[in-house]
Amino acid sequence: MGTSLTPIQQIGEFGLIEKIQKHFSNKLQKNTILGIGDDAAILERDEHNFTLISTDMLLEGIHFDLTYYPLKHLGYKAVVCNVSDIAAMNGIPEQITVSIALSSKFTVEAVEEIYEGIRLACENYKIDLIGGDTTTSRTGLVISVTAIGKVSKQKVVKRSGAKPNDIICVTGDLGGSYTGLLVLQREKVTFKANPETQPQLDNYDYVVKRHLKPEARTDVIHEFADLDLVPTAMIDISDGLASELLHISKNSKCGVIIFEDKLPIDPQTATVINDEFHISPTTAVLNGGEDYELLFTIRQQDYDKIKNHPDVTPIGYVTDSLQERKLILRAGTTAEIKAQGWTHF
Amino acid sequence: MGTSLTPIQQIGEFGLIEKIQKHFSNKLQKNTILGIGDDAAILERDEHNFTLISTDMLLEGIHFDLTYYPLKHLGYKAVVCNVSDIAAMNGIPEQITVSIALSSKFTVEAVEEIYEGIRLACENYKIDLIGGDTTTSRTGLVISVTAIGKVSKQKVVKRSGAKPNDIICVTGDLGGSYTGLLVLQREKVTFKANPETQPQLDNYDYVVKRHLKPEARTDVIHEFADLDLVPTAMIDISDGLASELLHISKNSKCGVIIFEDKLPIDPQTATVINDEFHISPTTAVLNGGEDYELLFTIRQQDYDKIKNHPDVTPIGYVTDSLQERKLILRAGTTAEIKAQGWTHF
Repeated sequence: MGTSLTPIQQIGEFGLIEKIQKHFSNKLQKNTILGIGDDAAILERDEHNFTLISTDMLLEGIHFDLTYYPLKHLGYKAVVCNVSDIAAMNGIPEQITVSIALSSKFTVEAVEEIYEGIRLACENYKIDLIGGDTTTSRTGLVISVTAIGKVSKQKVVKRSGAKPNDIICVTGDLGGSYTGLLVLQREKVTFKANPETQPQLDNYDYVVKRHLKPEARTDVIHEFADLDLVPTAMIDISDGLASELLHISKNSKCGVIIFEDKLPIDPQTATVINDEFHISPTTAVLNGGEDYELLFTIRQQDYDKIKNHPDVTPIGYVTDSLQERKLILRAGTTAEIKAQGWTHF
Repeated sequence: MGTSLTPIQQIGEFGLIEKIQKHFSNKLQKNTILGIGDDAAILERDEHNFTLISTDMLLEGIHFDLTYYPLKHLGYKAVVCNVSDIAAMNGIPEQITVSIALSSKFTVEAVEEIYEGIRLACENYKIDLIGGDTTTSRTGLVISVTAIGKVSKQKVVKRSGAKPNDIICVTGDLGGSYTGLLVLQREKVTFKANPETQPQLDNYDYVVKRHLKPEARTDVIHEFADLDLVPTAMIDISDGLASELLHISKNSKCGVIIFEDKLPIDPQTATVINDEFHISPTTAVLNGGEDYELLFTIRQQDYDKIKNHPDVTPIGYVTDSLQERKLILRAGTTAEIKAQGWTHF
């Protein structure tokens, strides 16, 4: 396959995307406003609105484990990932397409479970399922979803708009989904060792729910509209806070400083990850993925609009130095923010 | 997985889609004009135009065999399938998203080959690649493409618009892709038995090209515009002519009669399929898939507009009896048109 052979691990997922992107001009259609490189692509729609397009593919054995991931939740989550990307552009989802590849082990009833989850998500987020593809897979389950959304031209938010002195905020709390994943993986190991045991999940309800039934923050997008607040930059937190902060920093060409003691962590997340898995809650927040919360920046003069919001936490601020990507620790010392992220390869 | 267990084979792919579709209303967004059930979904765009959305997922071992399918051609074809769906609505493609799952056997150079094919298709059809997802696969290669297109509101063509006495036409010639597939599969078997042999494809150039490098008929869509011709119904021929005729018949609530001696078959297709595989060329046309030609119906008064078109063949006509789905054989006898189609399950 070519004369030179480079393993994908050598350049990573982001390296691969950058390499591919170079070959595409994206200037063949004048209604393409923004292509690869943000949570969703932006297309011209009408006088007042843009169309947003986002897509995600989930594979069994890579993104989910059917041993503990219920099919209905999986269908729900496949929609949520994409809704979250549309929300990250300050948009509202309108339609999705869903393509599914199934191995022969799946029954019609199992497929209906997946679609029941998809249907519930469509109902909750007011989305129409408008198309897709259903096919066989030789091996595992594959779900590919594309979401189509809408945003007012004056309110579209990209990763690139953060300015020095902007306040960095996040919605909800972080690290819960990763903690839930660790709990579920531990239960799976226990179950394999002794299939007679029943899963013990009573004390893990919150973190397990964060992992199995994430929600996209379209509620916050509606609140932004009510508050007449347009963030200067935004991204959804799917690969961990550290990775997303670096995207904002790189795309906005500015630095970021956040404070460890400001990071929002649910008490159950903190206790479980610390006491049972001996991982610092801050590490879970920075590098654990799939929280599907929003990371955004606002101008200082807009701070009053969200300062009393119970579900928005200011965690730091934007600086004018691109090289500055710092976490101020509780002890007062400083650590460099590095993306561990989610390395599939 | 539920109390009742029904194998998917029992209801088939179309049965499964129908079952799923019932649970979705598709009335949550007022800009959803048409959802599941045609080649592409139709969304409101602006005063004069609709947006079209189509999606397809290709899996290694199901839809393609990398033993004989070059990666560049695969990338090209993944785009073409979707462009063909947009063309089938009388639309023009504008953007695509591409999600790819790769096993660790793929090198960066191999991935670049796939994207080179995608880039070529984008260039040929004037499409922008605006997004996607790149991830690991435990097993084979998966490519999922979503295409976004545009059609004038006054010119959108669905499967449902055929009327009694309309003339049924097809573009190009049929059965070639299936014949090419059979040749390639035969070469693979020969090669496995004796790896010293070189593939002998000199006498199969046309059919192999039909299989490995199909094109979507956007050229015909532009010609329709020039001729001021709007077909009454249209569908792309991806699952074989029989299956597509039944879709037109079912959706338009009318019958179809076609003539065996009118079916356009390339001489190489006819010779190879008949002499070497002992399959009647008519069977290849009716049940062989992936020709990506267009099947469409026009009003009789529009016949003059296409009668001298070198690449459009009238093959029959529409009747008012829904039950009537007939093939008039060369001998003058009649056969029922049945969809064998492409049964993945």
